[in-house]
Amino acid sequence: MANSPSGETVTERIVRVLETFDTDRTVQTASGIGRRAGLPSSTAHRMVADLVECGLLERDEEHRVRLGMRLWELALRGSHALRLRQAALPFMERVQARVREHTQLAVLENDETLFVERLSHPQAGANITRIAGRLPLHASSSGLVLLAHGPRELQDRVLGAPLEAVSPETVTDPARLRRILAGIRRDGVVVAPGTVETVSTGVAVPVREGRGRVIAALSVVLPREAPTRPAVDELRAAATGISAAVGAHLP
Amino acid sequence: MANSPSGETVTERIVRVLETFDTDRTVQTASGIGRRAGLPSSTAHRMVADLVECGLLERDEEHRVRLGMRLWELALRGSHALRLRQAALPFMERVQARVREHTQLAVLENDETLFVERLSHPQAGANITRIAGRLPLHASSSGLVLLAHGPRELQDRVLGAPLEAVSPETVTDPARLRRILAGIRRDGVVVAPGTVETVSTGVAVPVREGRGRVIAALSVVLPREAPTRPAVDELRAAATGISAAVGAHLP
Repeated sequence: MANSPSGETVTERIVRVLETFDTDRTVQTASGIGRRAGLPSSTAHRMVADLVECGLLERDEEHRVRLGMRLWELALRGSHALRLRQAALPFMERVQARVREHTQLAVLENDETLFVERLSHPQAGANITRIAGRLPLHASSSGLVLLAHGPRELQDRVLGAPLEAVSPETVTDPARLRRILAGIRRDGVVVAPGTVETVSTGVAVPVREGRGRVIAALSVVLPREAPTRPAVDELRAAATGISAAVGAHLP
Repeated sequence: MANSPSGETVTERIVRVLETFDTDRTVQTASGIGRRAGLPSSTAHRMVADLVECGLLERDEEHRVRLGMRLWELALRGSHALRLRQAALPFMERVQARVREHTQLAVLENDETLFVERLSHPQAGANITRIAGRLPLHASSSGLVLLAHGPRELQDRVLGAPLEAVSPETVTDPARLRRILAGIRRDGVVVAPGTVETVSTGVAVPVREGRGRVIAALSVVLPREAPTRPAVDELRAAATGISAAVGAHLP
């Protein structure tokens, strides 16, 4: 693959261009993209032209660009995330209808928690997660479940690195986190008050592929003072349903 | 951007590689990808290695590859489709709960109908559409709505080309289609029996951005003999809700 003078592949540069888009910046100029991706202006303009040509980016009337529907289509059409989400959605809707708070599905991606689906109740409280959003593994109930069931090397790597506090109550002491992880493996659930936000409690359970390995975490975000037992029961029933559906469908 | 001997850009080749994945083929070998994308084996292996390195593809234990979560994340994080879908989902769920059949959201993409969301009732009947799936514009209720509100040049281009019959009842006569499109603009709804499948009737309404242009079509697929009036009322109410939500959120 053709490399740039910096030794970077074209693929890496394309990823850098796509990375400049996010929830708060869905429309950009080619110059702005170049600046944010650290690319020379002429390179940025040429890459944007190529990406528009292929439909991965789209240009509007004012010559600004946004992510193209084609990119979305390519990413989803043959995607594991979509299949997992498709299998999970009916069960998540049931949790959502009964618990009436935020319901989320998360996977482990590159040592972080990646949220692949979220359903929100209009009257539900605070929740900083969003679809395709990330949080550190130690800093949310979903992440703790994924970490508890992840490979030993992952746990050592994450707990050996500096641990950021997302809220004043995020647990950042490695020894205490190891006890929490052991508890999750023993109980099959975690209740994490104030870990992400002081006003809320995260409750998460593992989702297995059939009866095998843990592939996701299913969670709800409750107001801090709410009882957690009904949510735990709903989450467990839903996780069992998703596991069966995923086991039947995934290749 | 570096071009291959065939004059193709690297970006175009990457798209060709990603295009080899679909619902029925989520896991492939690098050789299989090369064959399907029409690339020399050495090129395919090098491109796959690059794409794995960037996280756009992921390798499993058996050295086969699948689409990466990173691709999914990049495509969705700053995406218009995700925002539209987020705004639409609560309203689609309401339609779904009341009509209890398939509920879909579609957009115009590259002269075709691209389905960006679908909710299905477990007991609902046949429905060949799927998320990130496509149908010709003239061949589904959603597509007819998008075509009716599309630019004049689009209508001329689509109706001037050979029109494929997806089912024995798909309307393929340009003059009859033009009358249907005029009816959609007049009535704000289309009822299309048998257009996609003989056993079902598609019902679709336009979704506007605020009070402006039509950005999507919202549809349900009913059994052929079902009454359509309740579905039309639900769809209209939902479309109004989505338009208001989209108008408030989209940049």
